[in-house]
Amino acid sequence: MRIGVVAPGRPIDPVVAARAGAFAAIAYPDVDLVFHPQCFESAGHFAGSDAVRAAAFLQVANDPGYDAVWFARGGYGSNRLLAAVMPQLGPAAARKVYAGYSDMGFLLGALYARRIGRPCHAPMATDINRQGGDATVARTLGWIVGGDRQGLEPDLAGRPAAAFNLSILTALIGTPWLPDLTDHVLMIEEVSEPLYRVDRMLFTVANATQLKGIAGIRLGTVNDVQENDPPWAETPEAMIAHWAGDMGVPYLGRARVGHTQDNHVVPFGIA
Amino acid sequence: MRIGVVAPGRPIDPVVAARAGAFAAIAYPDVDLVFHPQCFESAGHFAGSDAVRAAAFLQVANDPGYDAVWFARGGYGSNRLLAAVMPQLGPAAARKVYAGYSDMGFLLGALYARRIGRPCHAPMATDINRQGGDATVARTLGWIVGGDRQGLEPDLAGRPAAAFNLSILTALIGTPWLPDLTDHVLMIEEVSEPLYRVDRMLFTVANATQLKGIAGIRLGTVNDVQENDPPWAETPEAMIAHWAGDMGVPYLGRARVGHTQDNHVVPFGIA
Repeated sequence: MRIGVVAPGRPIDPVVAARAGAFAAIAYPDVDLVFHPQCFESAGHFAGSDAVRAAAFLQVANDPGYDAVWFARGGYGSNRLLAAVMPQLGPAAARKVYAGYSDMGFLLGALYARRIGRPCHAPMATDINRQGGDATVARTLGWIVGGDRQGLEPDLAGRPAAAFNLSILTALIGTPWLPDLTDHVLMIEEVSEPLYRVDRMLFTVANATQLKGIAGIRLGTVNDVQENDPPWAETPEAMIAHWAGDMGVPYLGRARVGHTQDNHVVPFGIA
Repeated sequence: MRIGVVAPGRPIDPVVAARAGAFAAIAYPDVDLVFHPQCFESAGHFAGSDAVRAAAFLQVANDPGYDAVWFARGGYGSNRLLAAVMPQLGPAAARKVYAGYSDMGFLLGALYARRIGRPCHAPMATDINRQGGDATVARTLGWIVGGDRQGLEPDLAGRPAAAFNLSILTALIGTPWLPDLTDHVLMIEEVSEPLYRVDRMLFTVANATQLKGIAGIRLGTVNDVQENDPPWAETPEAMIAHWAGDMGVPYLGRARVGHTQDNHVVPFGIA
């Protein structure tokens, strides 16, 4: 099995690629993990220009020699590729798994909107750098390589699901790149935001016409919360319960997704 | 003429209210500027609880004794009132001017979506605190009191227009609170954001199904820009021109709206 790694947002350090590659070579010896050289390019904020990142993604996605596209890391930028790449995905792209999270939710969402391939919210190559990161990335590789369910979010319960970073989800709302999530359990996680912004984004989710039919909401990790001045009075869980109530959908409890070592795999749709 | 001042987001200092009141008394002696006591309440982040803020807004909006609602200041929170207040606005509310900007764009947008009253993007009472703030607030008062066009954004040119803070606009996109802006010139301003976020929000604007029919985009002030690491390569003007091109609408140049002393009045629709 060959897995291609690309970086549609920001670049990664070759040392991190080597660590992830070394782990994969030991834990999954049958896997050929190929880091596209684009992962290490740099153009200002991004891992190469929009054209370079789009070309690398399309090259791997459309190559029948690859079984999966694994995103190297997040960081802003994958939304800038959607208009260019989505119309150019061919038959080989439709047979692949696409794995990542955070900013990569733009691509996962757009792929799922068009029912191309099998997008999943999942730890990325750079998560190898976390304490216990071997276990984190093993969840993704286990799912891609052998359909190993140990790394799946533990309460999927056979219901259709999707997981998004809240900032990315709200940036998709109102656009045709947001997939139809009717009857899906929607998991939301967030990192490095003050709580007033989280509240504002939950307002958008709760009022989004496109999300009226979701089955329920679960709350992933909300961490590295930025200071709110004055302090915010509600917890993230109280906030999401409040907005889910406004939306008329059940709040279904916590989910093990987010920007942490504990991040789990959520295949979009039914796993 | 009586103008009621309320604070649907964060509270204001009584000293600021006194300054604005003193200026109004001298410059517009026929105006009775009434600060609702709710402006000075405090409940955590907000100028009173959601219920208190909603009640104050409704009281002034529905009172035939007031000719206009002037928002005291911005700061997160007016979106939390929409579901409660919008269905309760009566005939007196439909005859009023509503003036504010920044977070108040939630209310202005929702009012315009339902064609209630005459919402306008305009300096607020706390803008009296800016250097040269007398001239800033005079633009709003002059428009409310006598239809004085000196404070209007200078290039309205008889075309329907609306102005929003970019963060507020994107939080409205995808919801029924966003007004129909077909054939409107849309002015966008932003404050205190890093440029990668501005770019992400412009992506949402450019891809928003609801905004497909706008006549064009103008760029207000983008100030207090937060550091981007690494530095962002494009200027806000290049960014908005790029995304307007993606959207297929003309970029029509700069607009004198934003979080500065130079902020001007933009009555929604045709002035």
